[in-house]
Amino acid sequence: MSTRKTIAIDMDGVLANNMAHYLAYHFIETGISITEEEIQGKPEAECFEDPKAVYRYLEKPDFFRTLPLNSSAQDVVKRLNDNFNIYIVSAAMEFPWSLVEKFEWLKEYFPFITWQQVVFCGDKSIIKADYMIDDHIYNLRSFSGKGLLFNAYHNINELGFERMNDWKAVEKYFFGN
Amino acid sequence: MSTRKTIAIDMDGVLANNMAHYLAYHFIETGISITEEEIQGKPEAECFEDPKAVYRYLEKPDFFRTLPLNSSAQDVVKRLNDNFNIYIVSAAMEFPWSLVEKFEWLKEYFPFITWQQVVFCGDKSIIKADYMIDDHIYNLRSFSGKGLLFNAYHNINELGFERMNDWKAVEKYFFGN
Repeated sequence: MSTRKTIAIDMDGVLANNMAHYLAYHFIETGISITEEEIQGKPEAECFEDPKAVYRYLEKPDFFRTLPLNSSAQDVVKRLNDNFNIYIVSAAMEFPWSLVEKFEWLKEYFPFITWQQVVFCGDKSIIKADYMIDDHIYNLRSFSGKGLLFNAYHNINELGFERMNDWKAVEKYFFGN
Repeated sequence: MSTRKTIAIDMDGVLANNMAHYLAYHFIETGISITEEEIQGKPEAECFEDPKAVYRYLEKPDFFRTLPLNSSAQDVVKRLNDNFNIYIVSAAMEFPWSLVEKFEWLKEYFPFITWQQVVFCGDKSIIKADYMIDDHIYNLRSFSGKGLLFNAYHNINELGFERMNDWKAVEKYFFGN
């Protein structure tokens, strides 16, 4: 058995920049431009006047397939994958139509991640790993390993977990440089 | 937090009778009838003259959507679900086209299982639970809880895990009757 440590990495908001995607869909739909600064500290449902806007965007075909990457995610996950047991763990079951899109997205941007390393679930409390990198504190709260909170507009006021401001911070955390 | 024990339940070969489905597909394809008795103790790839036959059937559209149920699976999983935290955990990532079919199949036969309780993964060593019911010993070997080997033609010679001959045996194990 491998003695490598295991890291569970979230997709939405961590590998992918969902916020930027929401703002782009909102602009296309309404013509109203909202900046990233304006939604800092707000939960998803309060980012736009219509609280159902985000769910409407999530249901559009190709939404998950066309998500933009977070900066440095590819390089740092590659380096992590060379040194740790990496699993990509996404709470995708709420949106079953997203499963294939998410799998295709991973194949495009993270071709070194094998199908053995992908987990689609509904509730992450069933995940066993040494580290979990996630932007939602409810996923980290039920986790028995070390939880690392990936910075996102909706969690900037959360305390209690070590915060990773971006993928460069994750790299520094695990490799020191 | 709930104090209920958690049970991870496999799909293929445990909830579903994959063997019967393979034999039916093989008969349709070749006209050759093979009985369940003839393949006892053989690995999947050796059940038919063509070692790739099973993989060819797995790739057919609707293969996973039309899998037959194992006897008593519905009733016993319902009873387990009323008394334990149940997760349905399927190593589905090798067959990404199966993800939506498997999800639809679960909705049809196990409507009381919510999306929060479904996990599609590639490697079950990331699963944390108190019990795992699975027909593959490689899944049970990497499991840190109590592994229960669900009887299947390919595992009849395996020792080292408590064997559940069928769903009635699972019911007896957890409820005593």
